[in-house]
Amino acid sequence: MRTLKLTIAYDGTDFAGWQRQASDRTVQATIEDCLLPIEGSRAIVIGAGRTDAGVHAAGQVASVTLAAAIAAGDLRRALNATLPADVRVLSIEEMSGTFNAQFAAKRKTYRYSIWSDGVVPPTLRRYVWHVAQPLDIATMNAAAQVVVGSHDFSAFQAAGSDVVTSVRTILESSVAVVPVESMTLMAGPQVDGILLAYHIMGSGFLRHMVRNIVGTLVDIGRGRKTPDDMRRILESRNRTLASATAPPQGLSLWRVDY
Amino acid sequence: MRTLKLTIAYDGTDFAGWQRQASDRTVQATIEDCLLPIEGSRAIVIGAGRTDAGVHAAGQVASVTLAAAIAAGDLRRALNATLPADVRVLSIEEMSGTFNAQFAAKRKTYRYSIWSDGVVPPTLRRYVWHVAQPLDIATMNAAAQVVVGSHDFSAFQAAGSDVVTSVRTILESSVAVVPVESMTLMAGPQVDGILLAYHIMGSGFLRHMVRNIVGTLVDIGRGRKTPDDMRRILESRNRTLASATAPPQGLSLWRVDY
Repeated sequence: MRTLKLTIAYDGTDFAGWQRQASDRTVQATIEDCLLPIEGSRAIVIGAGRTDAGVHAAGQVASVTLAAAIAAGDLRRALNATLPADVRVLSIEEMSGTFNAQFAAKRKTYRYSIWSDGVVPPTLRRYVWHVAQPLDIATMNAAAQVVVGSHDFSAFQAAGSDVVTSVRTILESSVAVVPVESMTLMAGPQVDGILLAYHIMGSGFLRHMVRNIVGTLVDIGRGRKTPDDMRRILESRNRTLASATAPPQGLSLWRVDY
Repeated sequence: MRTLKLTIAYDGTDFAGWQRQASDRTVQATIEDCLLPIEGSRAIVIGAGRTDAGVHAAGQVASVTLAAAIAAGDLRRALNATLPADVRVLSIEEMSGTFNAQFAAKRKTYRYSIWSDGVVPPTLRRYVWHVAQPLDIATMNAAAQVVVGSHDFSAFQAAGSDVVTSVRTILESSVAVVPVESMTLMAGPQVDGILLAYHIMGSGFLRHMVRNIVGTLVDIGRGRKTPDDMRRILESRNRTLASATAPPQGLSLWRVDY
């Protein structure tokens, strides 16, 4: 038996999330189904993070233990030949037998994309949250800084979550405007609006934590809340004080570090 | 009556092209249907170029003559509120009564996107042609230069086309690598492959002309043909000598100048 590390990208639009479910289409089940004829029996693919329905990944990482002797490069080719086009295996590495993509993950980075003002280019519509108003980016960045450090993130956790501790450590949290040259290269020369990218890197995340932080940051950018409110909400540990959860399609699991 | 100039973007994936057809979903019919309740009767929307099924537009331009007195900004808002998300009106301008988007167009620019080698990021899969081999970009650029100027483009015209003249003037034709920073900003930090953007600007284009030129350029990039072959094919005016037509999803009507 050998353990492999798979780096995976997917368009989450048509998936009910990462994790295998009884009937809905999920990324984990799709990859496991494609491994079945290669391995001959079902192998469990363990993801670094369980992305929700509609959430994308540019760099999900998964581990799997196989008996099959196929070389890593051939396995990547075989998987990409049978996987649907909305999931791709970017790379495969041989790891020591104890590697577990979930438990070994040291840092995860999520990116949340917001199209502010104007009109969403049709080619980006599945990958951004359209916020009709212009946003105050400097104020959003001041609020984004509030979450950096080790905090109890209960206020930004999905209702009904049941975890041992809701303390997490955030190492980076910032909003940037995607440069116009980069945006027009992808979306065309006549776009109307601004593409914002929020990056958050941390040791771990609670369920809906990034989307709840983004929902609150956007309310701050719209002037409905202040950076001081961000601090008060965080310290309250009270989920009902934070803003509504941002929609899934703006979110991508951007990279996982080990 | 007043004449308006609409700048329009669309994701062509789920359209049978621009032009109204008896039953298939088209961009022209979709926009005309949304104008109907505003104008009260059917207004004909004239596009600068008739994009084929599966071809996108970042900057299609259309003209329409309306009796309705609605302000341009309100019309844009009303149309974007009723249009499906794969079509957006980017801007609307009031024009003199004789403006016709098709006949007044001075230059059109198309962009064709190619993902070379590696693995196509799932979020770009609807907007690129995946060419599995690495491509020789310098050689492709030498061949791309061959079409600049006024030429009879019969060799790159769709079979069975019936136009008065197949002479067209190309002002710009070049292949560029999309900078890694721009690409990773949109597709993620761990992409495998190279994104190429071919831009071609001209006074006008024959049916399938851009896709036929791209098909031949890619064969040259793969080493199956040479820049000299490009010249021979162009001068032959013989459609059967050019390479296969490149697939529609890599193509976008990038901008129209008046």
